Amino acid sequence: MKRTIFTTPQDAEAAFYEALEKSDLDAMMAVWADDDDIVCVHPGGARLSGVAQVRESWRQIFAGGQTLRFRLRHQQTVNGMTLAVHSVYEQISVAGEARARNPVITTNIYMRTENGWRMVVHHASPAPSSPDTDGKRTPKTLH
Amino acid sequence: MKRTIFTTPQDAEAAFYEALEKSDLDAMMAVWADDDDIVCVHPGGARLSGVAQVRESWRQIFAGGQTLRFRLRHQQTVNGMTLAVHSVYEQISVAGEARARNPVITTNIYMRTENGWRMVVHHASPAPSSPDTDGKRTPKTLH
Repeated sequence: MKRTIFTTPQDAEAAFYEALEKSDLDAMMAVWADDDDIVCVHPGGARLSGVAQVRESWRQIFAGGQTLRFRLRHQQTVNGMTLAVHSVYEQISVAGEARARNPVITTNIYMRTENGWRMVVHHASPAPSSPDTDGKRTPKTLH
Repeated sequence: MKRTIFTTPQDAEAAFYEALEKSDLDAMMAVWADDDDIVCVHPGGARLSGVAQVRESWRQIFAGGQTLRFRLRHQQTVNGMTLAVHSVYEQISVAGEARARNPVITTNIYMRTENGWRMVVHHASPAPSSPDTDGKRTPKTLH
């Protein structure tokens, strides 16, 4: 299979959200590193590790048949030489639903591999409310 | 103030959880990079950015007066040259509570700075149940 080489973490991230919006499993997995150490945490979900678990989770999500639209806000990045961290708020809307969902806080981590930049971690968790409250709320939990 | 130099990400991580267990705010902030781009997400909380917000959140948590004990399980790491990613399950117990809390899935990211390895991202979110179900559950949310 012909695979795209992502020359920047930004390219890999754009391809990740495009695959998500298109429910394209092959395109999604082409973004991920082919590695047992990849980690994916869907909002509220357990931690998934390795290509097989990560692929199966996206297959199930895409099989749900919902068409999602993502708008990314408040991106912050930390760049290393071989790893890049993108922290974003995902504003998700679902086709056929009038109201936007609560945003999701996501840490995306990309690694420079011999096949370009690939995703190695996607950790997503529900934000408490609008991203406009970013930083203005104190945590209610003990840690 | 004399500051510890952490020569490995593991040293920084050990100091992070020690500061948490001791509710030691200065020790906690000595683990973090002194940077506007640091990111902290407490379980169920909004994203906090920069030293001032991160410090204030820990101050409030420590002011709660609870004594917490952390046991880390299922650690996975991705190591770059200047960034290191640790994915762990935190098993948290609270002094005076008979039952352990639900585990927390955490992505900790450390950066090699001129002052040693420092934390730049702490993204924690509640796990759905026991870490023994790691990978055996499918996400219930759409993404």
